[in-house]
Amino acid sequence: MTPKSWVESANGDTDFPIQNLPCGVFDAGRGPRCGVAIGDMILDMTEAELGFEPVLFAEPAWNRVMEAGPAKWLELREKLTEVLSDEGYRDKVEPHLVPQQGVTMHLPFRVAEYTDFYAGKHHATNVGTMFRGAENALPPNWLSIPIGYNGRASSVVVSGTPVHRPWGQIKGPDDDLPRFAPSRRFDIELEMGAVVGQPSQGMVSVVQADEMIFGYVLLNDWSARDIQAWEYQPLGPFQAKATATTISPWIVTRAALEPFRADAPPRERPVLPYLRQEGPGLYDIALEVGLAPEGGDETVIARTSMRELYWSAAQQLAHHASSGCPMRVGDLLGSGTISGPTQESRGSLLELSWGGKEPVEIGGGQTRSFIEDGDTLTLRGHARGDGYRIGFGACTGKVLPAAPLPDRARE
Amino acid sequence: MTPKSWVESANGDTDFPIQNLPCGVFDAGRGPRCGVAIGDMILDMTEAELGFEPVLFAEPAWNRVMEAGPAKWLELREKLTEVLSDEGYRDKVEPHLVPQQGVTMHLPFRVAEYTDFYAGKHHATNVGTMFRGAENALPPNWLSIPIGYNGRASSVVVSGTPVHRPWGQIKGPDDDLPRFAPSRRFDIELEMGAVVGQPSQGMVSVVQADEMIFGYVLLNDWSARDIQAWEYQPLGPFQAKATATTISPWIVTRAALEPFRADAPPRERPVLPYLRQEGPGLYDIALEVGLAPEGGDETVIARTSMRELYWSAAQQLAHHASSGCPMRVGDLLGSGTISGPTQESRGSLLELSWGGKEPVEIGGGQTRSFIEDGDTLTLRGHARGDGYRIGFGACTGKVLPAAPLPDRARE
Repeated sequence: MTPKSWVESANGDTDFPIQNLPCGVFDAGRGPRCGVAIGDMILDMTEAELGFEPVLFAEPAWNRVMEAGPAKWLELREKLTEVLSDEGYRDKVEPHLVPQQGVTMHLPFRVAEYTDFYAGKHHATNVGTMFRGAENALPPNWLSIPIGYNGRASSVVVSGTPVHRPWGQIKGPDDDLPRFAPSRRFDIELEMGAVVGQPSQGMVSVVQADEMIFGYVLLNDWSARDIQAWEYQPLGPFQAKATATTISPWIVTRAALEPFRADAPPRERPVLPYLRQEGPGLYDIALEVGLAPEGGDETVIARTSMRELYWSAAQQLAHHASSGCPMRVGDLLGSGTISGPTQESRGSLLELSWGGKEPVEIGGGQTRSFIEDGDTLTLRGHARGDGYRIGFGACTGKVLPAAPLPDRARE
Repeated sequence: MTPKSWVESANGDTDFPIQNLPCGVFDAGRGPRCGVAIGDMILDMTEAELGFEPVLFAEPAWNRVMEAGPAKWLELREKLTEVLSDEGYRDKVEPHLVPQQGVTMHLPFRVAEYTDFYAGKHHATNVGTMFRGAENALPPNWLSIPIGYNGRASSVVVSGTPVHRPWGQIKGPDDDLPRFAPSRRFDIELEMGAVVGQPSQGMVSVVQADEMIFGYVLLNDWSARDIQAWEYQPLGPFQAKATATTISPWIVTRAALEPFRADAPPRERPVLPYLRQEGPGLYDIALEVGLAPEGGDETVIARTSMRELYWSAAQQLAHHASSGCPMRVGDLLGSGTISGPTQESRGSLLELSWGGKEPVEIGGGQTRSFIEDGDTLTLRGHARGDGYRIGFGACTGKVLPAAPLPDRARE
């Protein structure tokens, strides 16, 4: 049995059936508000009187709901399912539905801090092979630690936000000194982001960590490979990853993804007890990347799955808190680039074009090694149920030329 | 001429003469409030009616004042100087003075994001020599880039907060696999922190960056060297630096430090235009570290100066924004460990004990290679003017034993 909604568009070809009920922030001309997607509509949570404390939706961000905790998350999901499926609520609820078309989407939550992990084994192996050779591809710690680094929360933007090609220090292999120039190896990273919905102070178990996760978004961690190559030793990526990170407009809740739990790949090394996870920690979410040049049609350049990750978000979060690091409501954990084992399943242009040596065909006789100005990159993801699919909406961004250099930064 | 205050204690042996006027948040039993230190007293900014908009002090954090901008910072400093020096204001202002003794200090501002740099050349050289040998001590990019990494804002605590020794993955050179254990090489890092008081979106010049800085704090970036050694390749320090970072309770404003501007060391390589700084970018601030074992007397184990830095906070901030990374009011930029050229001027135990090979004497027949449980570490700093000194108050923390391991994390 597949539950149906009285919102007809929710029962057809949509990312947002009644099984999904993802959380976003929309502006239909009256300022940004919390909303839940259903079919091609959005339920305005500030106006729908469903019996919840108005303070939960008093600001245009889902942080208050997250703070309220897992019991409230469940209550909200049950209530929304009831009122959107039972015709008896239609007269009361329908006036608070807004068409998705034409609204402006905002970040669905205030990002407290942003951490980016490196939990895709094919990705880590590919990048390691290119940078350090096949024999040193995977760093020695990789099979023991969900490797991650702190990113920059201020740079997280919602899908649709254009991204300027960054300037930065770049030094070619034959250059004596670096230049300050626009990146020529600007790239995407296809990731999932976990949204932390509960705080912690001190160590948490993997089970506790899983319960702290409110939901997931698609995440594109824009990366300037040439800036990164020169800056990243010894303290890691910094300005190469600070221009922007784009997330999908909708947080798909953990509850909606529960039927799609999937096992992580087998372990190749004993996992320390604080990182052990019983049961499936990943989700079976099909992912793809589309690239559309200025004025041209989109080509799908990569297809992969969240199942290709090695470490789950719960394991990442348990590791993150292991030193006593306080975790906060609104923390965003990027999974790391999700590449599969085949050439077509690689989650970055760096890998797809193998460092620029094998440019990717994008139709119209064009190829890409890295992003060109005017290109629009779009991530999509969905989990497929029996007669429905759970989607995130598109996670898209157009790359604009580098901003003009201010006078003071010129030679 | 040395200006005097009618607060007598401000005219003697104090970190807080009328030339200082640093910003903190105190609780004298009626909840946390913004205050300004003067001698051994604190002026309660929520009660002193000096003609400023009450909203500036409506929350226990200096972020609102920072947001108000440099003109307001100047106006506030001028007003405070006037009312605390002119006897005519005494009757009006004195009732709003609170003794420092007995108050609880809180973080002086809401830390938006925390970035830690690596701008001490002696420190980078010492650490590089220990880890990579003398010939590869300074990374190739170090003289071109103010190297930094994003830290964890949630881990920043105010002076006086005890710090638990962290757990983490540790792998000795002869171990096949890592263990999960309390750090045995827990350390301090003597740093200055710059507090960003104005936001930016897009590139900023070094001059603009300097004007964005509201003030400075002392900063101790607690570091677990053994956790760091195993985790930091390839993406940089993560849990090794996430347990806590302690800052002084007082932000000393840029205006108060202006008379102590000092030149950075000569450049050894051309600096790219976007990082060039005209005039002195550092400050002549004497720094020291004290270590007191449980129940014992303190020994000063290091003495150095902020002048030992190679890159200024303004250069760091200009670099931070160079990729288009948005900067926010309340961002905290750690300078990196400040070591001088001599053995006694090294700003970490790692350097002072040369990786544990040359333990430091701390009196009473005791030595230290790294921190032991019960040790209290205290940073102090001051700039010396004509007949006065500008101080930050102590930046102190006691190290407690590692917290018990939760059941789920046991073998």
